[in-house]
Amino acid sequence: MRAELDRATIPGPTLADFQAARERIAAVVETTPMEKSRYLSGIAGTTVYLKAENLQRTGSYKIRGAYNRLSQLTPEERAHGVVASSAGNHAQGVALAARELGIKATIFMPMGVALPKLQATRGYGADVVLHGDIFDETNAAAREFAATTGGVFIPPFDHPDVVAGQGTVGLEILEQVPDVATVIVPIGGGGLISGIASALAQAAPDRDIRVIGVQAKNAAPYPGSLDAGEIRPVVLGPTIADGIAVAKPGELNFEIISRTVDAVVTVSDDDIARALVILLERAKLVVEPAGAAGVAALLTGAVTALGPTVVLLSGGNIDPMVMERVISRGLAADHRYLKVQIPLPDRPGQLARIAEIISDANANVVEVLHTRHGSGFEINEVGIDIHMETRGPEHAELVLARLREAGYRPHIGES
Amino acid sequence: MRAELDRATIPGPTLADFQAARERIAAVVETTPMEKSRYLSGIAGTTVYLKAENLQRTGSYKIRGAYNRLSQLTPEERAHGVVASSAGNHAQGVALAARELGIKATIFMPMGVALPKLQATRGYGADVVLHGDIFDETNAAAREFAATTGGVFIPPFDHPDVVAGQGTVGLEILEQVPDVATVIVPIGGGGLISGIASALAQAAPDRDIRVIGVQAKNAAPYPGSLDAGEIRPVVLGPTIADGIAVAKPGELNFEIISRTVDAVVTVSDDDIARALVILLERAKLVVEPAGAAGVAALLTGAVTALGPTVVLLSGGNIDPMVMERVISRGLAADHRYLKVQIPLPDRPGQLARIAEIISDANANVVEVLHTRHGSGFEINEVGIDIHMETRGPEHAELVLARLREAGYRPHIGES
Repeated sequence: MRAELDRATIPGPTLADFQAARERIAAVVETTPMEKSRYLSGIAGTTVYLKAENLQRTGSYKIRGAYNRLSQLTPEERAHGVVASSAGNHAQGVALAARELGIKATIFMPMGVALPKLQATRGYGADVVLHGDIFDETNAAAREFAATTGGVFIPPFDHPDVVAGQGTVGLEILEQVPDVATVIVPIGGGGLISGIASALAQAAPDRDIRVIGVQAKNAAPYPGSLDAGEIRPVVLGPTIADGIAVAKPGELNFEIISRTVDAVVTVSDDDIARALVILLERAKLVVEPAGAAGVAALLTGAVTALGPTVVLLSGGNIDPMVMERVISRGLAADHRYLKVQIPLPDRPGQLARIAEIISDANANVVEVLHTRHGSGFEINEVGIDIHMETRGPEHAELVLARLREAGYRPHIGES
Repeated sequence: MRAELDRATIPGPTLADFQAARERIAAVVETTPMEKSRYLSGIAGTTVYLKAENLQRTGSYKIRGAYNRLSQLTPEERAHGVVASSAGNHAQGVALAARELGIKATIFMPMGVALPKLQATRGYGADVVLHGDIFDETNAAAREFAATTGGVFIPPFDHPDVVAGQGTVGLEILEQVPDVATVIVPIGGGGLISGIASALAQAAPDRDIRVIGVQAKNAAPYPGSLDAGEIRPVVLGPTIADGIAVAKPGELNFEIISRTVDAVVTVSDDDIARALVILLERAKLVVEPAGAAGVAALLTGAVTALGPTVVLLSGGNIDPMVMERVISRGLAADHRYLKVQIPLPDRPGQLARIAEIISDANANVVEVLHTRHGSGFEINEVGIDIHMETRGPEHAELVLARLREAGYRPHIGES
């Protein structure tokens, strides 16, 4: 996508800014582990590393940019406190950075925010104001509050100090994987990837390290904006990757990304759910849906890994209750979880017979529900819902075929 | 529990054996990360580290002992292949060790084994034989197969080479946390803790590092056996911690443990489920139920952390489908997930009214089911099952009180 790169024209932080940011944040921010993934390396055909920002303090990279910004406020600005709006990781990043620096933080969150995120933000000592049903209302209230109180509004991505903080990840990547050739990064507003791509371009000017961004299909303004050469907001659709659901690219971020990022691809929610389950099962790491987008792009082939490849796991803050649902969805997307509804004559012994067929086909029944009504039922028929564990698409087909052979009419359920 | 320790009387591997094991396994086994947990440190009032053997190859520490044993087989023994029986991590450990050494492995697993464990074991190239509904049958068949074929049966814990391999974790602990004062380890048969405790006692003879074992309440032969001074098997009850559900301590393991381990405590399945959820949420690490037992003991206060404390996360192999259920259970045990069934007059508008009461009390409705039958219903009443997310016990009580004030009779559901 990008033409030849003229490093002198990259706006925003210079290499010196990234290096200064790194020193500034060192006392508070962890150098997160870089874990080699044998499983993903096998699939990609090249060595794949996972940069585990899900293990960062506050559970995401956001603390880097927030702390770098807050630590450069003047004493007068600090005295007025900081203000932010966020339903997620930015809230926690600003709250912890403020606590570490002894600054009062007021964080606006939408009414329906997940309880663990609310509690975590309060746990870092921030005042939390619940306001608005949609994020635009929350954000407007936060800006108004900042204007009224003289507090400093801390933007989530569109600020050079924030970009410089997030770019410290790029400097760590270069040290941890000196021969890195490809870096895959989830994108929302563009704060993380603009920092990483700019830091890599400036710190390794003699190399051509590819940086690829990944957005969720239903929240992907970047591909169109980059094609058009100007910011083109989109209307957000539903996505499980709430952490990267941003309608409009940041201005500074867009300028940096147009010059330094090779491509921005998209992945579906099913792709993300499958990637999240693979990270749980194989890497034993908890990531939030947005944090799994990079791995999803690798698995679908939307990105080809060329040479040693680093995939950013940008965050790990997922409500356990949401995780339950995403696991179900990921297993279903992989055809490892099969839900069928089977209409039955209301005679005894049917359940036992069906259970035997499934068992003979080596699938494991996880859950059984008797239901009295259902689509596709004749009158006088009842039905059972059976949830079972299978080994994948072919195995699921085999189980269905065996049921049909025995005269049943299994309907495949929604996940 | 143990009296003064005479290191000369510890049976099994010597310090030289542990050191030799470490060199032997170095090419295949990872030195796993030691992660400081701010959250657990805050609760325990001392620094708590997590030794992440869930990030070990094959997803548990078992590869250490298996590889140390297999690599010492004679060429003749290797030619006959190795045999093991396991429903879990030992299977994968033996399978990978055998593959690395070019030895044929035949692994017996019970019929109902979870598909991911079966697939992982096959994935390492082992022949898997599914045999027996209960593990004793599986195990007997494996021993018979070994006797018939001349294959070498690899025991899961009761062998000095296996103990020496597992004890390499103890040497890593001493290097990673030189001032360690307490080590907390899940116990099944006793292979891991006997290795760690013996290695620590011999490698740091001038120190008094406490080693505490943790068993699942329904599968806890060690406390009674240690009190009696002899092995006393128990009848296993149901537990989610299948990885440490062993009815009878190993003989060598028991002898080492009697001399080197300070205490063995127990935790319930609810305690384990809560610990597993906390590890997911706070440490962003996936552990299997057995692997969370040590953290559970810290959280319940069954173990007091004195000085710098290392908790072993012994494994991370959990079927995602099981994880869904354990998360539900952990949230319910923490009163963060409240299920109520409410009988209702069959009139319109009831659901809306109840939803409003719950929303006003700041709980989040996760799932709603209309049901026509239920215990405690009058004739002509229908009921709804509501699952909601709350912030903990007091918040759950508040929600229930509001519902009662409005004239409803919520029954608290089973988790």
